[in-house]
Amino acid sequence: MPEPVSIIGASGALGFGLAVRLAHAGGEVVLGSRDPGRAGETVVRVRAAVPAGKLDCALNADAAAAADLVILAVPFRNQAETLHNLRGALRPGQIVVDATVPLAAALGGKATRTIGVWQGSAAQQAQEMVPDGVSVVSALHTISAASLRDLDSALDEDVLVAGDRRADKARVAALLDSIDGLRCVDCGRLEMARLTEQLTALMISVNVRYKTHAGIRITGLPDELWPAAAS
Amino acid sequence: MPEPVSIIGASGALGFGLAVRLAHAGGEVVLGSRDPGRAGETVVRVRAAVPAGKLDCALNADAAAAADLVILAVPFRNQAETLHNLRGALRPGQIVVDATVPLAAALGGKATRTIGVWQGSAAQQAQEMVPDGVSVVSALHTISAASLRDLDSALDEDVLVAGDRRADKARVAALLDSIDGLRCVDCGRLEMARLTEQLTALMISVNVRYKTHAGIRITGLPDELWPAAAS
Repeated sequence: MPEPVSIIGASGALGFGLAVRLAHAGGEVVLGSRDPGRAGETVVRVRAAVPAGKLDCALNADAAAAADLVILAVPFRNQAETLHNLRGALRPGQIVVDATVPLAAALGGKATRTIGVWQGSAAQQAQEMVPDGVSVVSALHTISAASLRDLDSALDEDVLVAGDRRADKARVAALLDSIDGLRCVDCGRLEMARLTEQLTALMISVNVRYKTHAGIRITGLPDELWPAAAS
Repeated sequence: MPEPVSIIGASGALGFGLAVRLAHAGGEVVLGSRDPGRAGETVVRVRAAVPAGKLDCALNADAAAAADLVILAVPFRNQAETLHNLRGALRPGQIVVDATVPLAAALGGKATRTIGVWQGSAAQQAQEMVPDGVSVVSALHTISAASLRDLDSALDEDVLVAGDRRADKARVAALLDSIDGLRCVDCGRLEMARLTEQLTALMISVNVRYKTHAGIRITGLPDELWPAAAS
């Protein structure tokens, strides 16, 4: 059973897909939105896909306070503003899973290109903006929202995870590994988000060419990716 | 049977591994080096792994003139100088497969970090430096040299290919697909090398954590990745 989680931006494509899969896995999911109407509408949509889902909804700030694990699934152009608005809601000990991607599309450019973030990556920007004691873990940039929302679509891919605290990454991995067909891989420190965030643009380029929803698998790994002793 | 290929920097780790695999696949391989002694020594080493290999060796400039397909497998710190020295040897119609990676290690930094290249990527720098009419295709950044050189190690991973001419990418794919266990994936235009080159650093970070030689597989792709009609 995955631990309870809040999703900031649950009415967006990625947030919605994650909500469907995590609810399907049996987890309690709080669906956060900027707008109460959209939050409620999202609950209805998720419930249509997962009738037995343990769902709640809230404005983003209330959602951020409602669980120790908080997934940030907003477009990059809203990331800084959202984090600014959540400063009063987040508390030490929480983990923010940053899934935002600095696509050039945020500024009217191509979705196969990215823009430079001063801090190095969106995740590092998030780490700079959250209150002290909140840990940012970067993940989910190669997972297709379209594949997530469709429970009939069998997932078969890895989640590339980066963060500075191994125990926090392992906790995020336990959450996301509860989704059938996903496997979390430790890609190193949070600064590696510079690389993993770029992969969204690569996936989009591959998707355009092959008219698919591509994912990534890392080959050559051992069976046990999150040994308890090391966390 | 793969078409003949020259490898610039064949005495390096990646160049050597590619030479072993391509010779094993039955292709004619010209092993280029800056130093005639090292070129000859490399032939001996490749022949030890592939006794029936069709091998020749040459100084880099002669190697570059010896085949229509030329793999550039030099360290990034030597890339610009090497391409400068090859300007008189390369001719229109040739394809240069750029496998160089702008790792920060080139300047004494970490192998899990990269440095910025003004042109956007090492491959784009290569395209700027080769004579007009020579086409640069970017590939091979996620393939472990250690896995390549060991014929007992079964490969099971993708080669991420980027380039501006689809027919040229398809030709490179036909060459590299001749290596058992490798599958080439079209990742888009040459500018996507900005992203694929970064993956070497990501692979190194994963390798350090899991003590392995990781590779990448793209999931969700159709069976036919290089349809002849589209090339």
